[in-house]
Amino acid sequence: MAEPATGGSGARLAQDARGGSRRALSRLLTAVESRSPAAEDALRALYPAAGGAHVVGITGPPGGGKSTLVAALVARARAASRPVAVLAIDPSSPITGGAILGDRIRMQAHPADPDVFIRSMASRGHLGGLAGTTAESAAVLAACGFGLIFIETVGTGQSEVEVAAIADTTVVVQAPEMGDEIQAMKAGLLEVADVVVVNKADRPGADRAAMQLRSTLALGGEGGDPSRPRPKRPEVLVASGLTAAGVPELLAALDRLHEARAGSEQPHAARVARARAQVEGILADRTRGLLWAAGAQAGTDELMERVAAHELDPYAAADILWNRLGR
Amino acid sequence: MAEPATGGSGARLAQDARGGSRRALSRLLTAVESRSPAAEDALRALYPAAGGAHVVGITGPPGGGKSTLVAALVARARAASRPVAVLAIDPSSPITGGAILGDRIRMQAHPADPDVFIRSMASRGHLGGLAGTTAESAAVLAACGFGLIFIETVGTGQSEVEVAAIADTTVVVQAPEMGDEIQAMKAGLLEVADVVVVNKADRPGADRAAMQLRSTLALGGEGGDPSRPRPKRPEVLVASGLTAAGVPELLAALDRLHEARAGSEQPHAARVARARAQVEGILADRTRGLLWAAGAQAGTDELMERVAAHELDPYAAADILWNRLGR
Repeated sequence: MAEPATGGSGARLAQDARGGSRRALSRLLTAVESRSPAAEDALRALYPAAGGAHVVGITGPPGGGKSTLVAALVARARAASRPVAVLAIDPSSPITGGAILGDRIRMQAHPADPDVFIRSMASRGHLGGLAGTTAESAAVLAACGFGLIFIETVGTGQSEVEVAAIADTTVVVQAPEMGDEIQAMKAGLLEVADVVVVNKADRPGADRAAMQLRSTLALGGEGGDPSRPRPKRPEVLVASGLTAAGVPELLAALDRLHEARAGSEQPHAARVARARAQVEGILADRTRGLLWAAGAQAGTDELMERVAAHELDPYAAADILWNRLGR
Repeated sequence: MAEPATGGSGARLAQDARGGSRRALSRLLTAVESRSPAAEDALRALYPAAGGAHVVGITGPPGGGKSTLVAALVARARAASRPVAVLAIDPSSPITGGAILGDRIRMQAHPADPDVFIRSMASRGHLGGLAGTTAESAAVLAACGFGLIFIETVGTGQSEVEVAAIADTTVVVQAPEMGDEIQAMKAGLLEVADVVVVNKADRPGADRAAMQLRSTLALGGEGGDPSRPRPKRPEVLVASGLTAAGVPELLAALDRLHEARAGSEQPHAARVARARAQVEGILADRTRGLLWAAGAQAGTDELMERVAAHELDPYAAADILWNRLGR
């Protein structure tokens, strides 16, 4: 397999990545994450071929065993010779450069297998928004032949929930026993779930927790904001990432959801959300670039310090920057 | 105290809120959160008086006992007759309207005390960004006489970390014993900490955990990204929100940090970050409003569906919207 020795245009990177170069694919994803111009060229070239993949969000509170479950799903997909990619959205430090979630899955996967591609993305510092970057990365992976793409997030922050919204199918993972504050998060997460997995079925209490969840979900349909569409009622499954029990059934359930949608005429809401996240990210980049470039010429930093000193209110500062753009 | 019976302009709300009406203050914060025009008027009027408050971020992984600790800090501040406000950034459901963090603190505070003001904010759905809304809410509270403002967040998501960045002082709270995934988050959180509190000192292991943390932090200064300023070394304290042990010492440490800064000539980085978050939020609102308004006139939804169907790439869609703005 030819690996380009040096950089190159986005279109060239795209061609090499589609041709099977994992190094080109890695570099392309780096370009996407840093929103470099090469990424724009590549994405324009790849996008027509990026349809059809199943993007599955795997989320849930810390401690639910998501990484182990994703590793078991990857192993199961590989046993059926399916190429599979993982985007692990990592809440760890930008300074230490940590990539905990991705590393954990990687440890359990076969590093020599070119049809498993695992990528860690830091959850901070995405200028066009984490959801936009993640949607673009998934499009690149889809165009490179990965028909099954897992996005793993820790489902507690706003941006992580936005990332879940761009998945075709969302799986919420939890352990049988979980604390008080985590319950609160779960309430928000359950609303976005297509499938809830009570993981760690190797421990006691998993079946009982699943039963309780099913009855909670059956009751939960009546309240809530009437202006929003009725949330779907998710399927509740029991699995163990550790022993792989229940994992074939989980993957089969995901495939069924994907196939049911493929037969539908309607554009799937998640695909539209993904499109919107990408377009909003691009537009946010452009406007931010214009505004701060205009501002930098005329001392934005000084302007911000005046706001910080309460000599100027933030709306007045926004007016000054806005007017400099000639509006 | 006069409570206005109906709505009114932002300037009027601002006047009533400064005059001591807690109802006007609540309505003003609602206006800020929904980014209504009234909020803009009010903030323009209040901003000159919004300097000087100490904005303290309280963050950390779930299960560390943040709410109990905040309640103990509030009680301590009230014992010294200091007005104190809490903004609890709540990760719970927008459908169920849950407000778990705020409610927990409220349960432990004195509901009849007008000098304690507790506000829950959902962490989702802030158009101008959560950091911008939180900074504006803190400015409103400061102008209404709250010299000590706690912002409580669950420190696991990108937006929560951004919120921590706008606090003058950041306290990271953790329990003596914490899991593996949480360690990863902590690494990122420790970099932003001015003070680390090992909470739940009523349980065994707190002193040992604090010792371990101190030695980790003493070692941690060497690695990392050399282009970033050396992270400060946080103070490590042991406390119990439950018994209030260590809470007077914690509040005293916070006051010392605030006073040390007040004597400095330099504008404090957090104040500039707060200013920038507000201005960026305002500008993001304006550009988004312009772009999507222009788009809606000419079928943005159809455009997004074409992107979702991979008939159009997202950059081409962005070009179309951008050009409609006459650039």
